[in-house]
This record gives sequence, C-alpha cells and structure tokens, in this order.
Amino acid sequence: MEQRVSLITLGVQDVEASAQFYEQLGWTRAESPDGVVAFDLMSQTLGLYTLDKLAEDLNLPIEALGTGAMTLSHNVRDAEEVAPLLARAEAAGAAILRPAGPVFWGGTIGYFQSPDGHIWEIAHNPYSALSPEGAFRWNGY
Amino acid sequence: MEQRVSLITLGVQDVEASAQFYEQLGWTRAESPDGVVAFDLMSQTLGLYTLDKLAEDLNLPIEALGTGAMTLSHNVRDAEEVAPLLARAEAAGAAILRPAGPVFWGGTIGYFQSPDGHIWEIAHNPYSALSPEGAFRWNGY
Repeated sequence: MEQRVSLITLGVQDVEASAQFYEQLGWTRAESPDGVVAFDLMSQTLGLYTLDKLAEDLNLPIEALGTGAMTLSHNVRDAEEVAPLLARAEAAGAAILRPAGPVFWGGTIGYFQSPDGHIWEIAHNPYSALSPEGAFRWNGY
Repeated sequence: MEQRVSLITLGVQDVEASAQFYEQLGWTRAESPDGVVAFDLMSQTLGLYTLDKLAEDLNLPIEALGTGAMTLSHNVRDAEEVAPLLARAEAAGAAILRPAGPVFWGGTIGYFQSPDGHIWEIAHNPYSALSPEGAFRWNGY
C-alpha cells in the first residue's frame, strides 16, 4: 500500500450547505455530479457526501458515524495567520473549540468544529516549514 | 484558506499497536518524538495520537470522538489491486465492511475498518486516472 490518501470523505447532513461552508473559507469546488461536492486539494480530493448514503455504502448504522477521532490540520506559513483563519471559520458557522495560541511544542494552533462536526486544526509549526507549493511533511522541507 | 490538508490525525487507543497495523500494510514511519507516530504521505502527513490526549487538545470529552463520518480512500491503479489490499488489511487485524466489488458508478471498491475504528476505502476509479506519482484529483489526470 503506497503512502497516500486519495480522497477524504466527510459525511454531512446537507451536501450543499456544507459546501457553502467550505466556499466561505475560500475553496472552489470541482465539477461533480449531483449529490456529491468535491474540492481538489494537493494530490488528493476532499468530498462531501450525505451521512445516510455514506452509512449505506459502509454497511453501518448512521448512528455509528461519529466525528472527532479523525481530525484534519491545515498548516499555515506564519503564526499570525492562525487567528484570522479561525475567525473566518467562526464567521462561516464553525464553533471554536480552542482559540489560537501557543502550544507546548513551540507552535501556534487553534481548533474549530465545522457545522457538521468535523474538526479542523489551524496550525503553524516553526519546525516543519511548508514547501513553496504548500506541501507538508513531518520533519519539514 | 488554501485547498490542502497538511496533517490527518487518527485518534487511537495505543499508538504503537496502531502504527504496527499501518506498517503491516507496508508503510514506513518518519522520525518522531515519543507518543506520536507519523507517516509521510504525498504532500501531507498521517499522524497517530492517543484518543485521550487528542480529546484534551480538543477540549472535548473522549466519548465525543467517534469515527466513521470521515473516511479515507486509497485509490489504486488497477481494479485487480482492490481485493488483495483488503485481504492484507484483514490479515493485519482490520474488519472488512464491504468486500471488493463493482459499484454503480463503474468503479471497484471495498471498505475496511482498522482495529481503531477508522474507515478506509480501497478504490479503483476508471474515470479518475492517478498521476504517474499516484496523485489523485476528482476528474483525473
């Protein structure tokens, strides 16, 4: 199994409402058939799909589809970018779980929870510089 | 907010046990401090972190950290790769939620659930060819 994730799928109540949340953060959707919204990321895609259809696909009850034990981080180039991005998410309907601030390992982070419950970290890590294109790897570029 | 995910964090019971699951699938970990295991992917990293520490970071009760409403897909180049990869995951301790088989949109998919509850899709999509390096985008390369 190669070390890559092709698609991150978020199960949501209402695909269109959820898409608008990500559009308010500045994202642009790819062309897509009805019932699914896709945002192309770096080397992968993030898709929005209704929870009931996802549960059916997975052969699991919809109640089993929780959130939180998998989080997504978006790393920024400067510590000063963390707070404004959290504010933008809050303005778009997210709940701030943890405001922007320093963390013990030397970075600056904050967490928001999207209206559908998915958890995003906005982070600046001074020890893991992003590539010029924005790519991340554990020990930096 | 640029369209990229830097880090996918999986909350797990036991970081070392979980790391061994992904190593059995063929992955190699990056150098990392104690308490966290990191696998560098394409343009991003997948990290393993204990559920209790993740809950503390998020200011959420550990019971709120469910799985399933966010799934990860790993796309392969040929339909014939789906079943063997699911078998390999099963041998490493995963539960098969849906065996390899054709899906209505023309692809071949299957789902497994890791010992920690995270859900992975193994997929071949004949309409979304991977780049030579394995990168995915919604409408193909």
